Amino acid sequence: MGETTAFQLDDRLARDSHPVSRLDLCELRLANDSRWPWLILVPMVADAVEIHDLREGDQLALARETAKVAQLLKKITGCTKINSGALGNVVRQLHVHVVARNEGDPGWPGPIWGHGKAEPYDEADRQKLIGAIRESL
Amino acid sequence: MGETTAFQLDDRLARDSHPVSRLDLCELRLANDSRWPWLILVPMVADAVEIHDLREGDQLALARETAKVAQLLKKITGCTKINSGALGNVVRQLHVHVVARNEGDPGWPGPIWGHGKAEPYDEADRQKLIGAIRESL
Repeated sequence: MGETTAFQLDDRLARDSHPVSRLDLCELRLANDSRWPWLILVPMVADAVEIHDLREGDQLALARETAKVAQLLKKITGCTKINSGALGNVVRQLHVHVVARNEGDPGWPGPIWGHGKAEPYDEADRQKLIGAIRESL
Repeated sequence: MGETTAFQLDDRLARDSHPVSRLDLCELRLANDSRWPWLILVPMVADAVEIHDLREGDQLALARETAKVAQLLKKITGCTKINSGALGNVVRQLHVHVVARNEGDPGWPGPIWGHGKAEPYDEADRQKLIGAIRESL
């Protein structure tokens, strides 16, 4: 009732992804699905749902951080195409997906969201990818 | 061969959507699929494929124009959620989708891309929606 709500990561996002880094605006996470290298940016702004609900400065910071993450993911993976998107039909907390896609990968050329069942990483593979991302940031 | 290539709209984007307006950076188009109110922004930059390939000024202009279009589409349609995304697995020319989603619409809560078969607008419905978008710009 008039109190400021603090940002708190959505439970499902927390469960389905691993922390990678904190950028200026966003928490950067790796989805726990080894089918595609798949990063998620979550603006640390309480109650944000749509990108256009953010203050203009935060919208531009989100665009900058998304582009930075897309560029490094393309470089690290050598992928054919980056897919980025903000859907939020299931988890309403604002989050932006950045996914490395390659011809013939699961679901290609369709979208990844809602496609089949997640295949969690082996611990070693996950740590290796997270390490490479952290180094490139 | 060192020559500057002019921007030209991809043939498939031209065929599957209708012109709505020209913004500062982007051509704004309406997808010819009445299942969802679905706008497409195409930066008028030759050979652009990934958002992060744009110059920084154009990246921020794209973010601003996408947010503006998302906000007006949400206002016009009263939709539950905006879905936005840049995929480009089929059409490589850089384009950003902004789609109005509602609970129970075709494919909900999954993504729209690749879902079923397009249902073209009746001419009158299309003109009405395009008119409302132009008025709100």
